[in-house]
Amino acid sequence: MKPRDGRRRVVIEDVAPQIDGGKYPVRRVSGEEVVVTAAVFADGHDQVAARLLYRHESETEWRFVPMRSLGNDLWRASFVAERLGNWSYSILGWIDHFATWSSDFAKRIAAQTRPELADASPAAAADAGAGLETGSNAGGPDVALALSAGAILVHKAALRAQGDNRRRLGEFARTFQALAGEHWSFYENPCSEELDRLMAQYPDLAHPTQSENEFPVWVDRVRARFSSWYELFPRSASPVPGEHGTFSDVERQLPEIAAMGFDILYLPPIHPIGRAYRKGPNNTISASPDAPGSPWAIGDRAVVPCAPLGADVAGDCGGHKSIHPQLGTFADFDRLLKSAKSNGLEIALDIAFQCSPDHPWVQDHPDWFVIRPDGSIQYAENPPKKYQDIYPLNFESPDWVALWDELHSVFEFWIERGVRVFRVDNPHTKALPFWEWCIDSLRSRYPDVIFLAEAFTRPRLMYALAKRGFTQSYTYFIWRNSKAELESYLEEITQPPISDFFQPNFWPNTPDILHKTLQEGGRAAFMHRLILAATLSSNYGIYGPAYELAENAAAHPSAPPPESEEYLDSEKYQIRQRDRNMPGSLVPLITALNRIRRQNLALQSNASLHFHSVDNPHLICYSKATLDFENTILVIVNIDSQNEQAGWTTLDCDRLGIAAGESLLVEDLLDGAQYTWRDRNYVVLRPGIQPAHILRISRLGSGAV
Amino acid sequence: MKPRDGRRRVVIEDVAPQIDGGKYPVRRVSGEEVVVTAAVFADGHDQVAARLLYRHESETEWRFVPMRSLGNDLWRASFVAERLGNWSYSILGWIDHFATWSSDFAKRIAAQTRPELADASPAAAADAGAGLETGSNAGGPDVALALSAGAILVHKAALRAQGDNRRRLGEFARTFQALAGEHWSFYENPCSEELDRLMAQYPDLAHPTQSENEFPVWVDRVRARFSSWYELFPRSASPVPGEHGTFSDVERQLPEIAAMGFDILYLPPIHPIGRAYRKGPNNTISASPDAPGSPWAIGDRAVVPCAPLGADVAGDCGGHKSIHPQLGTFADFDRLLKSAKSNGLEIALDIAFQCSPDHPWVQDHPDWFVIRPDGSIQYAENPPKKYQDIYPLNFESPDWVALWDELHSVFEFWIERGVRVFRVDNPHTKALPFWEWCIDSLRSRYPDVIFLAEAFTRPRLMYALAKRGFTQSYTYFIWRNSKAELESYLEEITQPPISDFFQPNFWPNTPDILHKTLQEGGRAAFMHRLILAATLSSNYGIYGPAYELAENAAAHPSAPPPESEEYLDSEKYQIRQRDRNMPGSLVPLITALNRIRRQNLALQSNASLHFHSVDNPHLICYSKATLDFENTILVIVNIDSQNEQAGWTTLDCDRLGIAAGESLLVEDLLDGAQYTWRDRNYVVLRPGIQPAHILRISRLGSGAV
Repeated sequence: MKPRDGRRRVVIEDVAPQIDGGKYPVRRVSGEEVVVTAAVFADGHDQVAARLLYRHESETEWRFVPMRSLGNDLWRASFVAERLGNWSYSILGWIDHFATWSSDFAKRIAAQTRPELADASPAAAADAGAGLETGSNAGGPDVALALSAGAILVHKAALRAQGDNRRRLGEFARTFQALAGEHWSFYENPCSEELDRLMAQYPDLAHPTQSENEFPVWVDRVRARFSSWYELFPRSASPVPGEHGTFSDVERQLPEIAAMGFDILYLPPIHPIGRAYRKGPNNTISASPDAPGSPWAIGDRAVVPCAPLGADVAGDCGGHKSIHPQLGTFADFDRLLKSAKSNGLEIALDIAFQCSPDHPWVQDHPDWFVIRPDGSIQYAENPPKKYQDIYPLNFESPDWVALWDELHSVFEFWIERGVRVFRVDNPHTKALPFWEWCIDSLRSRYPDVIFLAEAFTRPRLMYALAKRGFTQSYTYFIWRNSKAELESYLEEITQPPISDFFQPNFWPNTPDILHKTLQEGGRAAFMHRLILAATLSSNYGIYGPAYELAENAAAHPSAPPPESEEYLDSEKYQIRQRDRNMPGSLVPLITALNRIRRQNLALQSNASLHFHSVDNPHLICYSKATLDFENTILVIVNIDSQNEQAGWTTLDCDRLGIAAGESLLVEDLLDGAQYTWRDRNYVVLRPGIQPAHILRISRLGSGAV
Repeated sequence: MKPRDGRRRVVIEDVAPQIDGGKYPVRRVSGEEVVVTAAVFADGHDQVAARLLYRHESETEWRFVPMRSLGNDLWRASFVAERLGNWSYSILGWIDHFATWSSDFAKRIAAQTRPELADASPAAAADAGAGLETGSNAGGPDVALALSAGAILVHKAALRAQGDNRRRLGEFARTFQALAGEHWSFYENPCSEELDRLMAQYPDLAHPTQSENEFPVWVDRVRARFSSWYELFPRSASPVPGEHGTFSDVERQLPEIAAMGFDILYLPPIHPIGRAYRKGPNNTISASPDAPGSPWAIGDRAVVPCAPLGADVAGDCGGHKSIHPQLGTFADFDRLLKSAKSNGLEIALDIAFQCSPDHPWVQDHPDWFVIRPDGSIQYAENPPKKYQDIYPLNFESPDWVALWDELHSVFEFWIERGVRVFRVDNPHTKALPFWEWCIDSLRSRYPDVIFLAEAFTRPRLMYALAKRGFTQSYTYFIWRNSKAELESYLEEITQPPISDFFQPNFWPNTPDILHKTLQEGGRAAFMHRLILAATLSSNYGIYGPAYELAENAAAHPSAPPPESEEYLDSEKYQIRQRDRNMPGSLVPLITALNRIRRQNLALQSNASLHFHSVDNPHLICYSKATLDFENTILVIVNIDSQNEQAGWTTLDCDRLGIAAGESLLVEDLLDGAQYTWRDRNYVVLRPGIQPAHILRISRLGSGAV
């Protein structure tokens, strides 16, 4: 079947950035440039032109910007998306008949004095006189006829223009026509930059091609790309030994957490903790009656009275819209939110969609769970292991519509209370279509909400969650410890296509994972892993105060993973009160790193990350820089926790905006020391004492440091 | 908005092969395996299963084949497409609840004897007695309940099955249920391979996911991938000196051309040659009245009488459906086709959509051309150069629908006469939407037609033509002469994604291009370029007898390209009678190469092409092999036409199906010599005498050679 308009000769291909042909949005943050490239071309030798069309979802009309040719039929343009939410872009291409005419015409003008060029046959110089119209091969008549053709193009553009532009184009057209009528034998070129500009402004869009898809771009607030997270268990926050901590206790710690330089304070689930099969210390299955249990076992309908939404009591039927009574009331929670804000912190809640056997959903909606042949509800299992305190939700429930709505309403409930950051527990065990719908629906109303996916799972599933809307993701960073592992993993996740939809958040520890590197390397390892997390990834976080204190005792160090990575006396099952300011604490290093991150734009995104070579496998060297190299940071880390390591770095100068052999003034932002560097430098780093350089590069003589 | 069925948990991504998300078909030839891979996965830990669905366009129902997991959520399956035409494929994925159950169940069975494994807490071995149902952590009751669950899955499958299978599944379900009722404390696993097979045959497809697109595959006949072309000018075919050759003269040469081993005989345009501005010898613009003119200037309405379709006269109004009277009549042409066929040759026609000023379309459809302000029709120009003998068609004509139909009818006219191979002149100067429609429309009726695109243009445009249906394409081979150029270009075009839609056809010369390498290297260069073309690409061709005779005189050797690449006394403008069997002719080498190509399956496709290292930039080494390495060809060519070159090859053993250090018996298919080779070998090659080895590899002791 023929197309509607077969005269649309321009082809648009290879549009970037895009995810799966435009099925999922590319992610950018507010104020970031969206650089778009595409192949735009047509048959033959006519010139083409193209525009990048773009708009925010609230706009009905496209805005546009002309694309520039990069050669090889590739074109480029960009726009800056300030406003949060869904943007889309598309590309329009057309044959630029005026540009084609104008370029040909310039050649005709040039050839007036060299008629011997005018013949298609190289041997034809001797054969002048065979021309079509007048017996001459070039010069006047040819140029006059071409001027007439040009006049028609300009006249038509005048009809598309308004006001002064219309008048000016009309004048050009009349000039062309008049010149054409004068039959001179030699012409000056009457074209001008003004004419080119006006003609580009009123192109002939009679047969344009628009790229088949509109490509979505989701614009988050800047914190989606640059954030520093601190996780703590509120129940451990009491200063009174043995006492269950409360929101008020957390509130008192806010200034200290803010002073360390964090901007997100993340709390494990704050909902009532189920009583059925409650776990005891060190994950024992028989808990004493006063064991606090795991915050991820959400339930306890029995003891929490139902309360109207917004009522100032801790519980709303004991589920995901309730507060564990020992933490405080809704009023306490609201005050914590407010107090955090005034300290420059946001509160992130942990949403774990799973239920203990006494969760209200179990009784009210048994069909949201898998029911076994004996009528009982299926608990979590990894045969032969059993997790009887946890009932997973069944996303193949016939009542999935109501289930989706209820889960969605949990987010909405906390968003309405003022929470804008969620850490989602095990999102990879919930159906992907659910997340796609849920996040899309939430973001359309609350575009400033950030979702961190705790998906320690297969790479494709991790990426699939990011495509479907998760803003940030825990990564494999915690299990990437050697130089080769770090380099190849970072190169995978910080470059397109992955980086167009996936934002890493690096955690050197979590309540679930105390890696062997930390267990065995102790405080020195805590130092270098912290430096790596904070400088490799623009989003990072720590679980404290276990981190500040370099707490490295594992419950089962010789078990196979993941058991081997469990903390001894894990805070998941018991209250652990600690003083983060004990001697030897890493608070000063953390504070320095967060300060460095805030003061250096280069560390606030990952796009420029580049690894440089060092001739020692224990030393890793990388840089980040702003596009203009105004802020360029070079990091060298000793990843051996035991031994001093030394080596020669070889810097890729073009990634640092410097010339080979140039002398550089560098300042170590960790200790203020200044050095003169070149592209090759000798480095010595001592674990626990000076495990890294974080160097800001200035050119010598620029005066800046 | 929620999806229609939110329970479709499986995700299908990264389906390959595909072109632009399924917009254009992948190309395969009849009998070739279509290997499909895709990422198929779901949330959580349930097992998934997948099928590759496929069908020919004539079929309404999908056929299917199960996909196998390759690990990392990647799946694979394949089908063989015998029938020509459009195929499509798609992928269906679903949660395999039975496989999930079965794998969990096997673990339960295994755990019966090791109840200490059954607890989620590593510390819980001492805490037996806290189990949900009976106070036991594993063994009997757990297994019995799981058996009941399995019985339900098997029973449901029985309801989906028929006949014996239904009966057998019913028996399994009853056995499971009976065992579950017996409350043993130790169970044997009642599952079996038969059960797995039956369950896989009747899966639960209640909530399947089908890949969003159906991906098209176009299946050509085998000649689309493996062909040897010979081009000659019929008008030079007369044995009588100075006389205009005819179809009958060509017919007499057929046995000789077939004996060289070619399978396609390609003729430049056979239509009447325009008289207006007819070109003389060496492209002079003033031709004597008896100059034969260029066959690409198609026209001459004036002298060719209109004739009804199929009438036995040479012309049908002098255009693209006519025959140049000096070549013969339609009856002569039909006889040539028939005679070619009986010699194992096909005739390829050259379709050049352009008109001389006396072409009938010019008078009948002036609006198919660009009309200048003075009312004249725009001839071809590259200002200041003029090609007044050629009027290009205007694909922006308001009458484009009629123009498309007429061009389409030209192909149809010759197809109906029995032509199945077309070489299309300058397709890149005709609108891409036209080709997409025209080729699709023609192929839907004549799926055996082959189109060779003469598109010496920018890479994207070349590839765009291939995507839109051209079967084969001339390439940049003629301008890729150094080892580095050849290796990088071949790697680009013989690997996916390019090779999934683009089939190269290598020509070491054409009537338009006598490359410097041939001009300067003479006969020795003609030898090595021929060997490269015939062994690097499964499709190749030569323009003869200029090639056999190593004709290397250029018209303007010191001009800039493309003038410098024109033949002296080019056959494009005059009759050139030659004897291809003159002493020194390359006929024996050509014959040997075509024989080697026919006898060695490895040379009949490009997918396995691999370059091996040689420590001399003038020696190039590559291999091709069948999938099973039954036929493995190793080629080493000296690309220096002047000097003997020697060097050490280092073979990549895994690309040859051999072990490192293995002794190989190799036979040089050019001269029959046998050698023993290893992965490192010393090679000496002499230009003009022994410019190459074409080695067939046998394993020592295998007896074959």
